[in-house]
Amino acid sequence: MPVFTLAELAKILNVELQGIASTEITGIAALQSATPNQISFLDNPRYAKYLDTTQAAAVILAKQYVELCPRSTLITDNPYLAYAKVASLFAQKPIVTQGIHPSAVIGEGCEIHASASIGAHCVLGNNVKICANAVIQPGCVIGENCTIGEESYLWAKVVLYHQVKIGARVILHSGVVLGSDGFGNAQSNQGWQKVPQLGGVIIGNDVEIGANTTVDRGALDNTIIEDGVKLDNQIQVGHNVVIGKHTAIAGCVAIAGSTKIGKYCLIGGGACIAGHLDIADNVVITGMTGIPNSISEPGIYSGGVPPLPNKAWRKNAILFCRLDELNRRIKQLESKIVETA
Amino acid sequence: MPVFTLAELAKILNVELQGIASTEITGIAALQSATPNQISFLDNPRYAKYLDTTQAAAVILAKQYVELCPRSTLITDNPYLAYAKVASLFAQKPIVTQGIHPSAVIGEGCEIHASASIGAHCVLGNNVKICANAVIQPGCVIGENCTIGEESYLWAKVVLYHQVKIGARVILHSGVVLGSDGFGNAQSNQGWQKVPQLGGVIIGNDVEIGANTTVDRGALDNTIIEDGVKLDNQIQVGHNVVIGKHTAIAGCVAIAGSTKIGKYCLIGGGACIAGHLDIADNVVITGMTGIPNSISEPGIYSGGVPPLPNKAWRKNAILFCRLDELNRRIKQLESKIVETA
Amino acid sequence: MPVFTLAELAKILNVELQGIASTEITGIAALQSATPNQISFLDNPRYAKYLDTTQAAAVILAKQYVELCPRSTLITDNPYLAYAKVASLFAQKPIVTQGIHPSAVIGEGCEIHASASIGAHCVLGNNVKICANAVIQPGCVIGENCTIGEESYLWAKVVLYHQVKIGARVILHSGVVLGSDGFGNAQSNQGWQKVPQLGGVIIGNDVEIGANTTVDRGALDNTIIEDGVKLDNQIQVGHNVVIGKHTAIAGCVAIAGSTKIGKYCLIGGGACIAGHLDIADNVVITGMTGIPNSISEPGIYSGGVPPLPNKAWRKNAILFCRLDELNRRIKQLESKIVETA
Repeated sequence: MPVFTLAELAKILNVELQGIASTEITGIAALQSATPNQISFLDNPRYAKYLDTTQAAAVILAKQYVELCPRSTLITDNPYLAYAKVASLFAQKPIVTQGIHPSAVIGEGCEIHASASIGAHCVLGNNVKICANAVIQPGCVIGENCTIGEESYLWAKVVLYHQVKIGARVILHSGVVLGSDGFGNAQSNQGWQKVPQLGGVIIGNDVEIGANTTVDRGALDNTIIEDGVKLDNQIQVGHNVVIGKHTAIAGCVAIAGSTKIGKYCLIGGGACIAGHLDIADNVVITGMTGIPNSISEPGIYSGGVPPLPNKAWRKNAILFCRLDELNRRIKQLESKIVETA
Repeated sequence: MPVFTLAELAKILNVELQGIASTEITGIAALQSATPNQISFLDNPRYAKYLDTTQAAAVILAKQYVELCPRSTLITDNPYLAYAKVASLFAQKPIVTQGIHPSAVIGEGCEIHASASIGAHCVLGNNVKICANAVIQPGCVIGENCTIGEESYLWAKVVLYHQVKIGARVILHSGVVLGSDGFGNAQSNQGWQKVPQLGGVIIGNDVEIGANTTVDRGALDNTIIEDGVKLDNQIQVGHNVVIGKHTAIAGCVAIAGSTKIGKYCLIGGGACIAGHLDIADNVVITGMTGIPNSISEPGIYSGGVPPLPNKAWRKNAILFCRLDELNRRIKQLESKIVETA
Repeated sequence: MPVFTLAELAKILNVELQGIASTEITGIAALQSATPNQISFLDNPRYAKYLDTTQAAAVILAKQYVELCPRSTLITDNPYLAYAKVASLFAQKPIVTQGIHPSAVIGEGCEIHASASIGAHCVLGNNVKICANAVIQPGCVIGENCTIGEESYLWAKVVLYHQVKIGARVILHSGVVLGSDGFGNAQSNQGWQKVPQLGGVIIGNDVEIGANTTVDRGALDNTIIEDGVKLDNQIQVGHNVVIGKHTAIAGCVAIAGSTKIGKYCLIGGGACIAGHLDIADNVVITGMTGIPNSISEPGIYSGGVPPLPNKAWRKNAILFCRLDELNRRIKQLESKIVETA
């Protein structure tokens, strides 16, 4: 386990230290569970109540909380970012062995950099390119003509269909499927006729994609996820979707085909976005919101209705179905009042 | 790459050609990205604005758009179907090797047709039957007593539990799980008692199931997906569900146990359908709609509320929770007006 | 196939038998499909209409239905639990071979009990502990320092990242991913900075987790699923979530990070629960409900709006967006009425 003094951490983070510079820190933990040789942090104000009693040696926090904290403090405008940096100092990833595991099955014409790691029971199709320091954990299947950029990391059991291009420093979590056929079916007299999906998938640099998320290949052009995009678990990205740089999307979001999402957007969990839409840059969509139309202006958009105790909900939900009637009754009252007046 | 003249394509599609019959076509692309030796198509009217400037050699479209298109045209009532057929002419699937990969593990009593392909690191239980020209891509696990029909295609890492029957020409995408236990738990004094799931899963002919979709085995009878059904990615199908012929369901739909869905239904992305319901034939359910009750009449059904800028949404959402009060106030006004009148 | 007389079944279930004690039962089936040597059950009153015509030899049911049933009956307050017990008598799980399949790849320092089964093409990292009678079906990947308790059963293609602890008698269905990184990203001037996820996942005893469900590892502390919890398919559990004992959650639910869910809760399919919340014990959340705030009182909570034929829905949905205006118009009417009066 690595050890840092508070002075060293303050220097690495380039933040102000109030307290004992020589205290040695051996780990990081939440305010409630930190021990006296660990550092902690305060970002979400809901947890400020734990400042008073935390056993942490020191706390990373914003200026306004210093007085509430009896421990050493590292003071910064962005405690969450500072926490991320400190956590990376203490992170211990599983050890990876360079080279190709003897049980892996490798196609013809593959280019695999000597520094890359191909795990047990992986299967690579023909003409796959794996760049320097890339890690392919056990049980991944990579289709022909795929490229995996430098330092990218595929956890166990990722599947890439053919012609998927992955940039550098990309992280794909287990169960991710990239390049499956988009949902294209044309009506014919004999039932649905499959529309072949001829495009590919292009993933930029520094993208992270969560467990069991699926990204379909394009019908004709490619499905594109730009640099720095972060996708959580169990997201569905339809064919020919484009997701702009640095957009972050929480779990279980569904994005239908051919929709373009701008840069720096934030999309909450469980939201659904219809197909063939344009969502502007800097749009925030809160959780479980359905988006049936394009959004051209930045801002926060919300949908759904708040939960209620079931009995109250039933009354109100029934009235939702009678809103048109309520509106007509109000109109009638208005016209009568005018007559009376 | 195959090459077709426009005259040949018009003949294959059995449609009218206006323009240069001898033009050679080497591929298909979207209106915005097609090059002068490619064909394109217009289906969604939103893209009609690109007709004027497309570089495509020719465009497949409906009669009413011919005048807007300065290029050669192939004229049809169903441009999307014609596009599907042309795309299939240019589609290039990864090459498949017949026979059983030496790393595959095959149970006892399996019948595997000589024309079938079993990929690397596949595992087949006992008494599995794989019919002619079926393709099992690498890393699939197929439980005992399963049957895979002719020309069916399992992409990498599909899992079939025991006793799953797959028809002919079925496509299962990566991460599909068929035959996992349905969610059956009986309350007892010691907590939940598991209800064993003794049924199987039966998949008809010409079914396609998208990546990471799950279909549970029946509790007693089978879960059944009939011929020609198309399921998108990340759909959950509960135990004993029956989905009627040629129904198409978009991504992230959840269907709870024992619900019967009719034929020729269309279900939009993110919809949830409760258990033990009957949904009639030809029902359309729009995206993100929750269905708590059976539907006996064909038609289009919708739910949810439209998104709004967050501030406006908050005001309206709070009033949703007060609809019962609004209704009472309207009633009171009505009674006073009557008194006044 | 095992055979039981009705008398034997009545004794095993400790329930009253009305009818022919010596009848031999060879299986269990639904009321509609049972044959004369099978037993059936009635739990959901919607199926009472089949009592009259069922071919079953006997029916497990509650007292009030006895008169409606012309067959032998087994009478109990909890027919669903009795059915679960009888079904377990007739259940036939695939046969499992003890020991380690030669194609499995096992890390250093693993402790694998002689009675455990490790299937074909499994990959175990270093220092994995597999307890007595545990079954690891083919194609699972288990990261370093994981523990699998006694009699736990991992179906094909489960992935455990490093440091995941699984209790006894746990069932994990195919495609389950436990221990993937939580969704933690800090904003920086260079885009998102990944927050390393240093915690683990702890799964109690007697937990069942459905196909393709994902449970993220904790950011600092662990993500915890307590004893007896039942999770259906395609559920997403964020980092540092705690799910209390015996809570049951239906398919496609999303639970955002750091939320604590109480004991004995029931959560319906497609519900979404925001992060950093506290949900009390014995809370019931109906399907597709969004929960943005903590719930401190037991009870049933609901959200969403009922579906309507599309035309009616459009009218009402537009008025949802004008509720604030309707409210103001009612207020104005009220003030005018007061003036008039």
